Amino acid sequence: MAKTLARSPLAPDAFPDMPVVKGVRFATAAAGVRYAGREDVMLAHLAPGSVVAGVFTRSATRAAPVLDCEAKIGRDSADGAAILVNSGNANAFTGRAGDESVAAVTEAAAAALGLPASRVFTSSTGVIGERLPHGRITARIDELAAALSEDGIAAAARAIMTTDTFPKGAASTVHVNGGDVTIAGIAKGSGMVAPDLGTMLVYVFTDAEMTRADLQALVAAAANRTFNCITVDSDTSTSDTLLMGATGASGITVGPEDTAFATALEDVFRDLAQQVVRDGEGATKFVTVEVTGAASDTDARTHALSIANSPLVKTAIAGEDPNWGRIVMAIGKSGAAADRDRLSIRFGDVPVAEHGWVAETYREEIGAAQMQRPEITIGVDLGLGEGQATIWTCDLTHGYISINADYRS
Amino acid sequence: MAKTLARSPLAPDAFPDMPVVKGVRFATAAAGVRYAGREDVMLAHLAPGSVVAGVFTRSATRAAPVLDCEAKIGRDSADGAAILVNSGNANAFTGRAGDESVAAVTEAAAAALGLPASRVFTSSTGVIGERLPHGRITARIDELAAALSEDGIAAAARAIMTTDTFPKGAASTVHVNGGDVTIAGIAKGSGMVAPDLGTMLVYVFTDAEMTRADLQALVAAAANRTFNCITVDSDTSTSDTLLMGATGASGITVGPEDTAFATALEDVFRDLAQQVVRDGEGATKFVTVEVTGAASDTDARTHALSIANSPLVKTAIAGEDPNWGRIVMAIGKSGAAADRDRLSIRFGDVPVAEHGWVAETYREEIGAAQMQRPEITIGVDLGLGEGQATIWTCDLTHGYISINADYRS
Repeated sequence: MAKTLARSPLAPDAFPDMPVVKGVRFATAAAGVRYAGREDVMLAHLAPGSVVAGVFTRSATRAAPVLDCEAKIGRDSADGAAILVNSGNANAFTGRAGDESVAAVTEAAAAALGLPASRVFTSSTGVIGERLPHGRITARIDELAAALSEDGIAAAARAIMTTDTFPKGAASTVHVNGGDVTIAGIAKGSGMVAPDLGTMLVYVFTDAEMTRADLQALVAAAANRTFNCITVDSDTSTSDTLLMGATGASGITVGPEDTAFATALEDVFRDLAQQVVRDGEGATKFVTVEVTGAASDTDARTHALSIANSPLVKTAIAGEDPNWGRIVMAIGKSGAAADRDRLSIRFGDVPVAEHGWVAETYREEIGAAQMQRPEITIGVDLGLGEGQATIWTCDLTHGYISINADYRS
Repeated sequence: MAKTLARSPLAPDAFPDMPVVKGVRFATAAAGVRYAGREDVMLAHLAPGSVVAGVFTRSATRAAPVLDCEAKIGRDSADGAAILVNSGNANAFTGRAGDESVAAVTEAAAAALGLPASRVFTSSTGVIGERLPHGRITARIDELAAALSEDGIAAAARAIMTTDTFPKGAASTVHVNGGDVTIAGIAKGSGMVAPDLGTMLVYVFTDAEMTRADLQALVAAAANRTFNCITVDSDTSTSDTLLMGATGASGITVGPEDTAFATALEDVFRDLAQQVVRDGEGATKFVTVEVTGAASDTDARTHALSIANSPLVKTAIAGEDPNWGRIVMAIGKSGAAADRDRLSIRFGDVPVAEHGWVAETYREEIGAAQMQRPEITIGVDLGLGEGQATIWTCDLTHGYISINADYRS
């Protein structure tokens, strides 16, 4: 963990300029949960009248903070809300002690902010199986509450990092119903990192005025098309959390019929999701897998994930090897419908295989040139129906092995 | 492909002394399908009266020889049979040309051996998407037929290797119904190897006298408990094939009630299956995942495969890191039933986690000592029911990445 990793070659040039979202304030602190010399706790406060929505990992061994968030997420309240996140310790697989830590932290934040504890949502990311030293966090709560500022989102993005090599942010301002509404979000995640469970955490805020139910529906739909379409190593964290708050401070009311807002929200989600892939452990290639012509959307997703998660496909990409036979293999093993003689494969716009055999125009040099790009698209058409899916992933490199096998805790 | 790989550190000391199976003869030849300077074709002939059973890959993009074998496998015949296998070219994803190659090879072998083509079973393993140069094989058929010998099984085991680092054989002699019956088998496989699809091929022979239906039932059941319980990298070949022939030459009749024979057969299958794992690409650890207490056997298998295929578990093992949090993660993501607070985990006999938290007696040094062994057992008890499963796998190392990413075809 002490090891400093080089910034991903796929990282954006810089953290974006983030707009202020009225009604949301941030503060960060160096609580020393595990890391020394860096900020490791962030607090976000949402003004009274805000609504909160969220989606969470489907893991059967969910961490204590996730279970707590799930219990709180579906309720209406006019009190506002807070989100408190620490890095360095995941508070996962810590038995009843984990629940006690969540209670201690949420009650301290509630007292400092004048909120009921039921309105304080927490996440923890870092080492698992070790008791969260929650006293280090509660000791800083008053200081955090006093430091809350509308400008703190960039520092918040850094405080939630574990082995991320860059902080992740995305924002959009959209004109809707006669006014401007702002959306701004941050995320962390880069696969799962020794000796921690790396985790994907996402916090998005808007000053739109929305009902909780509308926000939840919008968040769930957009997450399905973005965060649920990325894979680094096929492993699923015990702690993945996406929380979104809408403060209403813009005075602009937004509903399900406002497609411009939904589109902007999905764009912010997709941007953050792709940044997580770009920070995939050891990644040197950003890969888009586009499957069309499947018997159903579900089949298309199954094929796309089988390709994106195949160690042999991912190592071939790492080696810049246009090894399309491995794509055929991954389609064959996925369990979804496929017909060898209707299958076609392309790299970018280059036809590679058609009708169950290599394309007549294909030459190894053409495929190799495609593979040398930092961003690669693998297209597969099953020729069976209208089903389609897109998955974003990265390659599997020596860097991944080094990060996950070479270091000891 | 030209690269010579070092013999796996998990390999057995030597190829075993293999008994003769009466009624089966072998021959090998250097046909130059792809490799120069080594034998790359093997022919096995089974005497008239033999029965043949088989199980095959479930891939939806099965290679031409597999489709041909599947069409032939369920029929009775008194003519005997032949198995012809080449390495160097998988004849997979080769469209109609692939079917033509299978027809050419099976017809040539049938003519040379005085068999109907419907009794010639073929397998091909090696590069995919390239037309099989079948003329190089048919040109050697007469020579192969003339060279058939009862003693050729060790040479056959070598001829079917691709990037295997050692030939694989196992045998057993079992006393049943007043006489001795012999079982001998060979296998190849070590994951999937650039630029080829590595493939698991298994050929087992016995001189027991059996009905085809009895043999098929026995083979399917034993394969489910052995070859279907191993995973190197979760990728599935287009060409996996297991064929077993029973010649009856011992004069000893064996039926489903002869459990000694069934046990001996399963032992030979398990031995060969574990040898495939021991030759897993880049493997430095042989790992047994034992899951008990699951809600069902199916759930136990799902959990065990989730652990065995997790890149994070496999890299932790490669790094000799007793990172049991990753095992919790793999159980959580598997989709099968689990309850955090009933879960226990052990390394070998050492309790690691109990009742949803680290075991009181566990110390990191104890786990680390377990991880330094070349053979590691991960035990998981779900505490939910009677379901159990065992899966054998290996670690994920820089060697795997080097084999699959660093070389170009």
